[in-house]
Amino acid sequence: MKTISESRAHGGIQGVYSHGAMSTSCEMTFAVFVPPQANDTPCPLVWYLSGLTCTHQNVMDKGEYRRMAAELGLVIVCPDTSPRGDDVADDPDDWQLGKGAGFYVDATRKPWSGHYRMYTYITEELPEFIAGQFPVDMDRQAIFGHSMGGHGALTIALRHPERFRSCSAFAPIVAPSRAEWARKAFTAYLGEDEDRWVEYDATRLVESGKSFSEFLIDQGDADPFLEEGLKPELFQAACRKSGIPLTLRMQSGYDHSYNFISTFMNDHLRWHAERLTAPIR
Amino acid sequence: MKTISESRAHGGIQGVYSHGAMSTSCEMTFAVFVPPQANDTPCPLVWYLSGLTCTHQNVMDKGEYRRMAAELGLVIVCPDTSPRGDDVADDPDDWQLGKGAGFYVDATRKPWSGHYRMYTYITEELPEFIAGQFPVDMDRQAIFGHSMGGHGALTIALRHPERFRSCSAFAPIVAPSRAEWARKAFTAYLGEDEDRWVEYDATRLVESGKSFSEFLIDQGDADPFLEEGLKPELFQAACRKSGIPLTLRMQSGYDHSYNFISTFMNDHLRWHAERLTAPIR
Repeated sequence: MKTISESRAHGGIQGVYSHGAMSTSCEMTFAVFVPPQANDTPCPLVWYLSGLTCTHQNVMDKGEYRRMAAELGLVIVCPDTSPRGDDVADDPDDWQLGKGAGFYVDATRKPWSGHYRMYTYITEELPEFIAGQFPVDMDRQAIFGHSMGGHGALTIALRHPERFRSCSAFAPIVAPSRAEWARKAFTAYLGEDEDRWVEYDATRLVESGKSFSEFLIDQGDADPFLEEGLKPELFQAACRKSGIPLTLRMQSGYDHSYNFISTFMNDHLRWHAERLTAPIR
Repeated sequence: MKTISESRAHGGIQGVYSHGAMSTSCEMTFAVFVPPQANDTPCPLVWYLSGLTCTHQNVMDKGEYRRMAAELGLVIVCPDTSPRGDDVADDPDDWQLGKGAGFYVDATRKPWSGHYRMYTYITEELPEFIAGQFPVDMDRQAIFGHSMGGHGALTIALRHPERFRSCSAFAPIVAPSRAEWARKAFTAYLGEDEDRWVEYDATRLVESGKSFSEFLIDQGDADPFLEEGLKPELFQAACRKSGIPLTLRMQSGYDHSYNFISTFMNDHLRWHAERLTAPIR
């Protein structure tokens, strides 16, 4: 592991690190905030997955999570959103495909399948790496994210309900199969057979019988992507039909930016902490 | 005034605006956070001055001031640090001179004197402009800043004690005449006669008899600029001799970054709010 930077913040340490990743066949960068409580005991681990065009850095700079994470004793891990490097396939003219747009899937189609294996990276390789390097309690994990990262959080939680004690999202892409801004990438990464897309589509996962304890979603009603790409009502209908508790809060006047995310960050961290610090089931 | 962006945050509005400034003879950009309380009544105005290389954006992204400003009902104004534009003199190889390094002085030497009039801009033109455009109570103003911006806040408060009800700083340059990283810029902007530098040197202003009600300064003890460029002990000695109350807090393990600033932002905003919301003297 390479340490890119470490800096004291809110009593803990905000670090940026990189490592050579097998799954994505490239050097991957990620950010970790370790709260002061970790000096004494391993702390619960909260995964934050970022949205299109982002790296680990956007939420690190603008997410305003450190004060509350330090208060609650949570480790926050913020991975990158795609493989990186000069030899990694890309579509530099399209921010919805290629670098910055990994969509947390394992691509099966060339030229993407060589590096774009973010699902395996986020669910297998990086957790194992984090467990070996940081003072984390791997029996107490939560996951959340924004937009494309909300999609990642919901789908990963639905496929690993035994691992995550809570899941929430800010303005998530809940139905990528039915959102124009995801269909192009899904076609490129996974091919045209949409049956192969189900495992990466939160709404279709719920419709196919996958379940999770409960979800919290915040969505701004001034979000310019709300009607075209986000469509939380599709996920709400599926959860209702399946009996999965979903708290969907429409937030008046908020857009899709980190001003929206940072406003409700404390609510989400408290919600996760309540579930992470309850006695293990 | 041009509106560059406005976005709801923590119940208020974070905006970025620009205007054609007479004093600096260029278009100037600044950020304003207006808290929800301003819907009902004009709010106290807190000036945040940024450090070398920064624009309005660094603190807007990384300062984590909005939650507390919204709670306390404070308008936060974050100006740029220098004039901008293709025709503005610069030293692109030196981050301590030219664009991003205005040092809140009125330059008197060519080629700088045409645009580098940040003192007049910050103390006269921008306040008048803000008063006309935003719901602010100009009888309740405070000022703070970071590094070069801490220097700006201290010197401006010492020269306008009647205007500001409180002043604080994060890791300020307190004695630019005795700091290598300021001497080059001061020489360029003001000439070699160091008597002309006094009005822009907080320690020398105090030594020359200027006063202020009290100061709060936070300084990280892991700040790489502490010994070479910041030297808070010089200001402490001057304040002690003059009887000006100074709370200087050395913060263990903190560096010069926004991780340091954001950690102590709430303390500073509460400190200003206590003084701003007390009955007018």
